[in-house]
This record gives sequence, structure tokens and C-alpha cells, in this order.
Amino acid sequence: MDQSNYRLPKRKDGQKTFDNIIETGKKLFSKNGYQATSINEIIEKSGIATGTFYLYFDDKFALYSYVLSKYRKSIRKAISEGIQHAETRYEKERLGLRAFLKFAWQDPLAYRIIWESMFADKELFREYYETFSHDYVRQLDAAVKHGEVRDDIDLETLSYVLMGISNFVGLQVLFRDTLTDIDLDRITDNVMKVLKSGMFRS
Amino acid sequence: MDQSNYRLPKRKDGQKTFDNIIETGKKLFSKNGYQATSINEIIEKSGIATGTFYLYFDDKFALYSYVLSKYRKSIRKAISEGIQHAETRYEKERLGLRAFLKFAWQDPLAYRIIWESMFADKELFREYYETFSHDYVRQLDAAVKHGEVRDDIDLETLSYVLMGISNFVGLQVLFRDTLTDIDLDRITDNVMKVLKSGMFRS
Repeated sequence: MDQSNYRLPKRKDGQKTFDNIIETGKKLFSKNGYQATSINEIIEKSGIATGTFYLYFDDKFALYSYVLSKYRKSIRKAISEGIQHAETRYEKERLGLRAFLKFAWQDPLAYRIIWESMFADKELFREYYETFSHDYVRQLDAAVKHGEVRDDIDLETLSYVLMGISNFVGLQVLFRDTLTDIDLDRITDNVMKVLKSGMFRS
Repeated sequence: MDQSNYRLPKRKDGQKTFDNIIETGKKLFSKNGYQATSINEIIEKSGIATGTFYLYFDDKFALYSYVLSKYRKSIRKAISEGIQHAETRYEKERLGLRAFLKFAWQDPLAYRIIWESMFADKELFREYYETFSHDYVRQLDAAVKHGEVRDDIDLETLSYVLMGISNFVGLQVLFRDTLTDIDLDRITDNVMKVLKSGMFRS
């Protein structure tokens, strides 16, 4: 992803305006989708002058890819904070899944925006999941070498299996009306039962 | 889903026009998304008179939900044809997954349209996956009673696990440049290794 199509603000008041544009973009993209959201609408709802938008972003796509990359970072941050005390791959999967589900529950807009990226830009979408997959494969490969994970499964496929599980169990969570920490533990434990015997060595 | 917002053609030439509108809608929805596609564009690209569109559909949403329900049916048909010779739940999962992956490879538009339905109508999207999940739970429950599937996993969560696996391994397939039957078998087998020990009784 080319990140040179946006410019970060230098001062505090600029930061406020910048954050405001981001928040407005998030809301509109997730509500109406990328294609149906116009720059004019973003500018109007942000309550800024047209020139101010272009001070920070080259175009609508620049704002969109910035928002997407922010989400990518915040999802990764939520997961890495969640797994910071994990010592085994099993614990990393369990706590990582729990953190991901909690993130999805707390920030449903993120879900919508990432899923919709397929329409904004096919390559951006592909790149998003391929990068996630590559990183996952590297971690799984280390776990295979440590003897934690079975060595007879293709790791690229396994990475998509694991991403699919998080994303769709994430949907299950989003479809609920309420979610307690106990629900979150119960759902996570159920997934881990499948993974424990499915991919880990006993 | 309310299906009374469209009217099927009665005659052969009407069927041709109707199919033409559907095909144009599929192309435009999958290319630009639901929100950014206008009725006028659909009418223009279909080469029909405005009145002809309304002969068959109440509005854009009527066409969209028709397309989505057609996809739902064709995915189910592909899967049920794929599993017609399967005798066990394990074989049903294996052949069903293979059929789903093949369908995704052959009709990538279906993928895009279903994923995008989150933006067209949140309830339509939810209903789509919840219905799939309910049907899956019923089948899994029978397999638990037959002693094929473990009885200690919550079946709703298991259904989302399985849908997530198909959908994301479907992405892995879509991201490829080529796909042979041997690739398809290899990918399916890798997923089944995880499921065999993960959800089935040995």
C-alpha cells in the first residue's frame, strides 16, 4: 500500500481536524460503503473547508486506505496486547482469538470497513489478507519447529482456516444482542476445543 | 426476506429480458457495489426501457435481493450436488467444502455480492448467515446423535467455525492465479486433516 498519499498534521489543532476527518470517513464508509461516499459529503459532515481536506489527503482513496491501515494496526495491537502473557502457541491462539472477538464487538465499524475493502480496491483487500496470512505462516512454522503444531498440514491453508474462524465467529458475536465476558470465554473455549485436537500436538 | 417485490416473466422473450437485467445487475453490483449502482445504470447497460425494469422489479433493492437469493440457491445446489454420494458427515463436509471452493473459483462475483450484502442491508446479511447457521446446526446435531461428531462442542459456534473455514479458504483459492483439480483436492485434504481430529470422533 502506497502511504505517501496522505500528510500527517504538524500541530495540535491540525491533529483535531485530521482526527475529525478520519472519524467522519469511518462513519460514512461503514454506513454507505466506499463507492457511495463522496469527498463532498465527508467535507460537509466534517464541517471543514474543501482545501482543508486536501491539506491532508490526496483523494477519497487516500483517506480510505489510511482508515484501513489504522484498523489493521489497531486489530494487531488488540491481539498483541491480548497475547502478551501467552507462552505457548496454544495460549497465543486462545488469547488472540478472544482479543479479536472483543475488538469486533467493541468496534463493529472496523468489521464493515475491512469486509467492504473488496469493493473499494480488490488489490487492497487481497494484500490485507495475504499479509496477514504470511505473518501467520511464519508464526505457525516456528510452532511446528517447536513441536507444538502438527507438521502434516499446509500452513498457508491453516492460516486461512484460522483467519476464517476468527472472522466468522466474530460475526456470530456481532449478531448477538448482548455479550458478557463469560459469553466471550465460552465461545472462545468452544473454538479452542476444535483447534486443540485439530492442529496442536497432544 | 420479502420476495413479493419482484415479478417473474410469463413468456420466453420476457425471460430473456429478465435474465439480462439479472446479469447486468450482478456485474454492476459486484464491480461497484450496491450503493454506487443506480437503477438508471442498470437500465442503460441492459439496453431496456425504464418501464421494462419496473415490470419485473419494484426497485434496486428488489433486484439485489433477488440476485442474492439466486446465489444462495446456486451455492446450495452446488454443495448438494457435490455431496450426493456422501454417506457420512465427514464425507459431506469434505465434498461440500470441495464443491464450495470450486463454486467460488468459477463464480467469483457470487463471493463479492454476498460479502457486500452487509452494506446493502445489514439485516439481509445477518439473515443470510443465520439461516445457513441454523441449517448447519440441525445437520451437525444429527451427526452428534449418530456418534460421528463430538458431543462437547457448542454447535452454533461450530457452524460459524465451518462457514468461516469455507469462506476464507475460498479467498485463498480466489487469490490464486491458477487452480487445478489436484490443487483443489490438496487444499480440501489439508482442511479435512484439521476437522478430522478437531470435530469428528475417531
